[in-house]
Amino acid sequence: MKAAMRSQDKTPSYKDTRSRLLMIGTEMLSEKGFFSTGLEEVLRSAGVPKGSFYYYFESKADFGLAVVENYERIWAQKLERLLHDSAVPPLDRIHNYISEGVRGLEKYAFRRGCLIGNIGQEMALLDDDFRQRILRVFVSWSAYVAECLGEARRRGEISADLNIENVSKFFWFAWEGAILQAKLERSTQPIEQFRSVFFSTILRRA
Amino acid sequence: MKAAMRSQDKTPSYKDTRSRLLMIGTEMLSEKGFFSTGLEEVLRSAGVPKGSFYYYFESKADFGLAVVENYERIWAQKLERLLHDSAVPPLDRIHNYISEGVRGLEKYAFRRGCLIGNIGQEMALLDDDFRQRILRVFVSWSAYVAECLGEARRRGEISADLNIENVSKFFWFAWEGAILQAKLERSTQPIEQFRSVFFSTILRRA
Repeated sequence: MKAAMRSQDKTPSYKDTRSRLLMIGTEMLSEKGFFSTGLEEVLRSAGVPKGSFYYYFESKADFGLAVVENYERIWAQKLERLLHDSAVPPLDRIHNYISEGVRGLEKYAFRRGCLIGNIGQEMALLDDDFRQRILRVFVSWSAYVAECLGEARRRGEISADLNIENVSKFFWFAWEGAILQAKLERSTQPIEQFRSVFFSTILRRA
Repeated sequence: MKAAMRSQDKTPSYKDTRSRLLMIGTEMLSEKGFFSTGLEEVLRSAGVPKGSFYYYFESKADFGLAVVENYERIWAQKLERLLHDSAVPPLDRIHNYISEGVRGLEKYAFRRGCLIGNIGQEMALLDDDFRQRILRVFVSWSAYVAECLGEARRRGEISADLNIENVSKFFWFAWEGAILQAKLERSTQPIEQFRSVFFSTILRRA
């Protein structure tokens, strides 16, 4: 039965194998960053022989960059869906984003953090391509939060004198630190503390 | 001349060699965390043969824990000196701590971040001893900031309804994220953005 099913399958296409490698790489780098992720482990999980790997990627660094691009794409979709959702008031969108983060931490038992945060910590060891790429990710993430805050300000929901640019960057600084702490405590409490200070103290939301 | 000087030297004591290993380990783990730091590299820098290493430490993990303890001790002294300085108003002490962080980043050309943040990111791979130790460090660091904020509240310098416990934890979340971003940008601008939001928006300091 299995053999019959298998015989009907097509040989995995270039795109399938590459996608599988990227998916597994994304999971592993979210758990432990770039340097602690062994290529052998990725290949074993993906069921791809080493020789084939180099058909898809030039090197481990090339693979790492592709994983970052993949993560960036997934995250852009998530931020687009949650933070550009015009049916939801702008501050509630940020609230929803935080709640989805809480569910993600619980789903993976606090093992997976932020891939961008993990790789960022290894920065001293990474080359400039990586650094620039990760910087661009943070710039785009800040822009999403800044848009929500801008809209909230136009609606009179936050103080007109809030420095939106600084607060949007600060949001991500504290988010990265709160994710790190949640992994350490194996608890979502740090995220709830983050949420409370962000909304009640920084935004002074009623 | 050199030989004569050397002959007068005593053989390095147990404490000297162990201290040198810890100092070099602290530098390296501040740059790249635990897993990316090779033992060979530590030994080469310290000029200690591998056999001797195991005279001082049972394993790399044992060494890593000792490095964390060493870092904790250095940091406790720094926090004690800056945040318990009764000659300085409490909020200025936090300000001084941030300024010393800025100088540290510049001194090491943005290569060295927070050892505790680096190791925290590797958490999925570390055992429970490490996790508990690092948690304790964050608890003690938060207590220092909470004390300053408590004093500032008694002096009427911050709002009486500020949730000091949450804000103190939040301070360190955002600090870790700002250090990460400063390393990425190779600039102290993220730290200045952190400082501005912390004092002007969170504490509403005039």
